[in-house]
Amino acid sequence: MDATLDDLARLVGGTVSGDGKTVVRAVNGIKEAGPGDITFLANSKYAPLLASTKASAVILAEGMTSPLPALRVANPDLAFGRVAEHFSGGAYRAAPGVHPTAVVAPGVRLGKDVSIGAGVVIEAGASIGDRAVVHPQVYIGRDTVIGPDALLYPQVVVREKCSVGARVILHSGTVIGSDGFGYATEKGVHHKIPQVGTVVIEDDVELGANVTVDRARFGKTVIGKGTKIDNLVQIGHNVVLGQGCLLVSQAGIAGSTRLGNYVVMAGQSGLIGHLDIGDGAIITAQTGLTKDVPPGAVMSGSPASERRTHLKELAALSKLPEALQEIRRLRWEIDELRKKTNG
Amino acid sequence: MDATLDDLARLVGGTVSGDGKTVVRAVNGIKEAGPGDITFLANSKYAPLLASTKASAVILAEGMTSPLPALRVANPDLAFGRVAEHFSGGAYRAAPGVHPTAVVAPGVRLGKDVSIGAGVVIEAGASIGDRAVVHPQVYIGRDTVIGPDALLYPQVVVREKCSVGARVILHSGTVIGSDGFGYATEKGVHHKIPQVGTVVIEDDVELGANVTVDRARFGKTVIGKGTKIDNLVQIGHNVVLGQGCLLVSQAGIAGSTRLGNYVVMAGQSGLIGHLDIGDGAIITAQTGLTKDVPPGAVMSGSPASERRTHLKELAALSKLPEALQEIRRLRWEIDELRKKTNG
Amino acid sequence: MDATLDDLARLVGGTVSGDGKTVVRAVNGIKEAGPGDITFLANSKYAPLLASTKASAVILAEGMTSPLPALRVANPDLAFGRVAEHFSGGAYRAAPGVHPTAVVAPGVRLGKDVSIGAGVVIEAGASIGDRAVVHPQVYIGRDTVIGPDALLYPQVVVREKCSVGARVILHSGTVIGSDGFGYATEKGVHHKIPQVGTVVIEDDVELGANVTVDRARFGKTVIGKGTKIDNLVQIGHNVVLGQGCLLVSQAGIAGSTRLGNYVVMAGQSGLIGHLDIGDGAIITAQTGLTKDVPPGAVMSGSPASERRTHLKELAALSKLPEALQEIRRLRWEIDELRKKTNG
Repeated sequence: MDATLDDLARLVGGTVSGDGKTVVRAVNGIKEAGPGDITFLANSKYAPLLASTKASAVILAEGMTSPLPALRVANPDLAFGRVAEHFSGGAYRAAPGVHPTAVVAPGVRLGKDVSIGAGVVIEAGASIGDRAVVHPQVYIGRDTVIGPDALLYPQVVVREKCSVGARVILHSGTVIGSDGFGYATEKGVHHKIPQVGTVVIEDDVELGANVTVDRARFGKTVIGKGTKIDNLVQIGHNVVLGQGCLLVSQAGIAGSTRLGNYVVMAGQSGLIGHLDIGDGAIITAQTGLTKDVPPGAVMSGSPASERRTHLKELAALSKLPEALQEIRRLRWEIDELRKKTNG
Repeated sequence: MDATLDDLARLVGGTVSGDGKTVVRAVNGIKEAGPGDITFLANSKYAPLLASTKASAVILAEGMTSPLPALRVANPDLAFGRVAEHFSGGAYRAAPGVHPTAVVAPGVRLGKDVSIGAGVVIEAGASIGDRAVVHPQVYIGRDTVIGPDALLYPQVVVREKCSVGARVILHSGTVIGSDGFGYATEKGVHHKIPQVGTVVIEDDVELGANVTVDRARFGKTVIGKGTKIDNLVQIGHNVVLGQGCLLVSQAGIAGSTRLGNYVVMAGQSGLIGHLDIGDGAIITAQTGLTKDVPPGAVMSGSPASERRTHLKELAALSKLPEALQEIRRLRWEIDELRKKTNG
Repeated sequence: MDATLDDLARLVGGTVSGDGKTVVRAVNGIKEAGPGDITFLANSKYAPLLASTKASAVILAEGMTSPLPALRVANPDLAFGRVAEHFSGGAYRAAPGVHPTAVVAPGVRLGKDVSIGAGVVIEAGASIGDRAVVHPQVYIGRDTVIGPDALLYPQVVVREKCSVGARVILHSGTVIGSDGFGYATEKGVHHKIPQVGTVVIEDDVELGANVTVDRARFGKTVIGKGTKIDNLVQIGHNVVLGQGCLLVSQAGIAGSTRLGNYVVMAGQSGLIGHLDIGDGAIITAQTGLTKDVPPGAVMSGSPASERRTHLKELAALSKLPEALQEIRRLRWEIDELRKKTNG
């Protein structure tokens, strides 16, 4: 799996500076790398490390200078990823076929070259797209559609009547289509409101491990095309996410909230139900949002306000202990002044 | 599956105003509905939408007026749910029987008309109540009791010696009876404290997807009758929840805390261990509670205080940046006054 | 399973005061205990309860006085755990052997006396250490190594090329080795960055239920020896945890952050990526940490500051509503004074 810098330039489409015959065998971080390793530099603040790294070569952005043989590309992050994949032997792909221990109901439509792993259960009426890989122990419910080239890791659950688009990746432990949380309370009894809707996961979505996406009460819960969701995130019933959103681990969205395109939710942030979040809004970590926000808003705090306002309040709060003392001094001085002027 | 409004009135027990022969074929939201749809109105603030909806009929509370043919009921939310279920073909029920790939230990007691899905594992000494549905790939441990009419979705785990009541619903990925988090630290080593207690889930409880309920250190962790828990909630060892509580997604409760009846925990809220929470208390979203609270308390903030106090502090905080400027002005003016009066 | 106090002293290595022939049959809490029960007292603040407990005997620390027959030990918590385990029949151990429904790839190395449960899937190249117990429905990926005496509860997933040390305990629903959350965004498309690294779980680690540990982008994500992690915790890619750390439920750590030894993260706390956390640091519940902290630091708040600073700010905030009134009074009084002195 050794490769020269010239080989890698052909692989990822960059240009070489320095000796293109330099041989590299593995990828590594700029601090950890040794001879034979190729490393990368995505952030110019780490440029000084280039002088001390023991790597044999480096991947960096066009226009940056390097004391090492270098591969220059438009996006070092992405190029490094492809090189790393190359050295790890390329992405593993399960062999096509249906494992004899899989339980596939009669009439399930299996596309070309699908791979259905050991212990998988696929219920009646489901359909699996061409080249989809369904790893062991996955559950796919009645009438659910899995798109072509989808990749379901072990122990994913996709319940009945849901739809998973092309090239979608679902990580282990993730549950799609569980019932929304809805009850009508009468005389102290919480009666379950049937959740008869579904979930639509559009093309090119990736969901991390142990994510939960509830089915709609009626209609559908939607994860828009190209949206990426990290581990342990909660998506409530009837939530609609636009395209290209990024939701970081442990974020949560309550029922019927709608996100525009390219919204970012940082870790452990939460949205209450029935909100409208504009395109490109950013919800910072641990923020609790309770109001609609326009496109491009940056929101912080719990309850959230605009980030600028929130930072101003935090800065003021840090001065508050001292300010309280100042207030006491002012009180004393005024009392003294009054005595004098009244005296 | 078409139905007239008169048919639906018989189904859910309401009264019709307008043309009872109006035919409806599907349910939909008041904004999305078209001809042939029935919609609903639970909140009078949306009443103006009745004038513009394209729905053929509406479900609403007794006493409300409607320009459309209407079905009037005591609880529109609940009635709409039943109607939605009707149009979706009624709740699906897995056929009774034990799938040949299920692994059921000798001596396990299976009730009448149980359904045991593909790949289910049930260990020795367990017991499954009449009409219970155990979906594929569920695990039920030794000596665990599952009540009649319980519904376990795919990939639930109920470990050994636990008890799950009648009509309980457990969603996919949920784990009941994992060990509590307890260690005794000696000389830098965390020795595991055996967790030999159990979990009791009382009747009519519903737990969402990927919930975790730890077994007690000794004695039992209890989820009270009719309590409903959303996805990704954590229930620590020896926690006792009363009846009819509602715990929203990503809430967490540390060991040995006790909740009364009808306590509400909103999303991402947390309770430390060993607390006593009174009946009907409300813990708002992202709140971190560190003290006992009496019945009916409404708590907010992290660390939490009474909601009223918390809101007062938040309001004050929003005025703080301006107040700091006012303090500086006061300081300057007093200094000027002192010069004058001393001068 | 009855035992005398003398028997129990031999079991856990303590000394008896009072009647060593006292027979006990079960363990129970100090308030709940009745005749025939043994209870324990780890915290001297509960000592008054010794006068009223109905227990037949008590386990307590050396040097404490007791009106009951007592077993005195160095660590009552730990000793009580062992006694509880004794009365519950000792820890259950699955019988060695490979269940006929397990799917073990050719060439997998199985150690001595391993137990492989029903429906387990073990992929090619994996290795299972001596006496390891792999409960039903677990998934173990290609080339993954499970250490001796490891205990994997039902429905754990350990993906390819990971390493799990000796005596490690993994609870149900936990996912090891899912892809890290990394994308390179070009022209509105989030391109997946291959995650070709691995996860190393060192010896004596315990992970709770539904935990997620992402594999490294390259290199490895590490959970240090003896570290204990509670349910629903997120460990991002390339995170490195030292030895003996304790992470409480729903805590989360973003990519590439490094923890020293014996760091404590309380419930629902979060760390952003690329931080360095010193040995013995304590991150309190719901804290959101955004900066490196030195050894022994105690951090609180979101965003976090030193606990002492944070508490001072909280105390000041509670006085703020009153302080704002005082500022208004001062304003009025100064205006009056100015009138007078100018008058």
